[in-house]
Amino acid sequence: MPRYSPEGSLPCITIDCTIFGFDNFALKVLLVKRDIEPQKGMWALPGGWVGDREDLDDAARRILEEATNLKDIYMDQVKTFGRVDRFPDNRILTVSYAALINPLSHRLQQGPEVSDVKWMDVKEVPPLTFDHGEILQASLNHLKQQVRMEPISFELLPAKFTIPQILGLYESILDTKLDRRNFRKKLLRMNILEKLEEKQTGGAHRAADLYRFDRANYERLIEEEGFVYDF
Amino acid sequence: MPRYSPEGSLPCITIDCTIFGFDNFALKVLLVKRDIEPQKGMWALPGGWVGDREDLDDAARRILEEATNLKDIYMDQVKTFGRVDRFPDNRILTVSYAALINPLSHRLQQGPEVSDVKWMDVKEVPPLTFDHGEILQASLNHLKQQVRMEPISFELLPAKFTIPQILGLYESILDTKLDRRNFRKKLLRMNILEKLEEKQTGGAHRAADLYRFDRANYERLIEEEGFVYDF
Repeated sequence: MPRYSPEGSLPCITIDCTIFGFDNFALKVLLVKRDIEPQKGMWALPGGWVGDREDLDDAARRILEEATNLKDIYMDQVKTFGRVDRFPDNRILTVSYAALINPLSHRLQQGPEVSDVKWMDVKEVPPLTFDHGEILQASLNHLKQQVRMEPISFELLPAKFTIPQILGLYESILDTKLDRRNFRKKLLRMNILEKLEEKQTGGAHRAADLYRFDRANYERLIEEEGFVYDF
Repeated sequence: MPRYSPEGSLPCITIDCTIFGFDNFALKVLLVKRDIEPQKGMWALPGGWVGDREDLDDAARRILEEATNLKDIYMDQVKTFGRVDRFPDNRILTVSYAALINPLSHRLQQGPEVSDVKWMDVKEVPPLTFDHGEILQASLNHLKQQVRMEPISFELLPAKFTIPQILGLYESILDTKLDRRNFRKKLLRMNILEKLEEKQTGGAHRAADLYRFDRANYERLIEEEGFVYDF
């Protein structure tokens, strides 16, 4: 039975990272192509081994950076996957972490054990290695729940945006159509958007109002306990 | 360096279970007294080792039953704790699971490696072993979030109950005072309670209306997507 974990790392646990990106009004996920056995050549979530003298959260950040060049990404821990047959030959559990970021703010670069790294539309993900399809699904569910419990990061949107753009972000994540009027009403009532003088131009439709986030009110809202988005 | 994990189990991972109980209008947590080294004699969350041919979720159920005699408890996985210094001598990560149950429905019995097992008020928990205090806190936060995202199980309350009793359950979990009128109005609007003819008697106050859960409506509500309690 091959032992895959390198010296200086824990033998029975790995970390896998599900990084979502909101880009061009589609929800994407960051995948790498495995350049090591087992399952060399398959697409996977970026992952790796936990050092035996490394805190779990530190390991997650290091592993993501090594595989993709994404630095200083704050990730939530989602779930630990531990089915006996999830990995061939060895018994290995994996702790999954997830984040939602703006892909435009980061430059990708593949790490030593991968032959490719890229953003793919979550609706067009190829078959993934091991149980990574299941991990992706759990991370998506986590994200859906998260956007209902806390305001989304304003770094996901351009500095100026329209309400249909925010609606698009929520609809991508929740994978559902929301009632436009109701959404608009609830969003404006939160008092975190500041309407600008200028309007969006160039579209086929009537020029839409442009907004920006009111950072102070936004942060006050985040700190409020009991916050629930209920679109 | 002692190796604590027995033959046939994974060397670097354990499971710890945070079982909450709602009893006599107080939120309790199930603790065991360790009867093995390290930290023999300290109070702890019930926990144990994962078999090397055992699925993680199966291990959680087995471990809880062995330590406490609680059978067939459905637990949520909460979080994996992996600070380097969380366990003395060995590097051991632990996956925490949690549940909220009715203590009256289960008979406790201590397992082979514990010298006592009992329910303690969450407000009166003694110092716990390792990082179990931190695990308990994370499980409490998980529970708080959970009661805002899904209806509580009606098995937590007696067959007939008053609205102040449900209010007490929510207030215990959320550790806050809720607005009584608002709570009552929102709860009744959910249409999951059936008012009974009889009233509660024997209290110092005016006799309170008794209710029971309308199981069909309750289950319909649970299945509804996008449910949010917003007390």
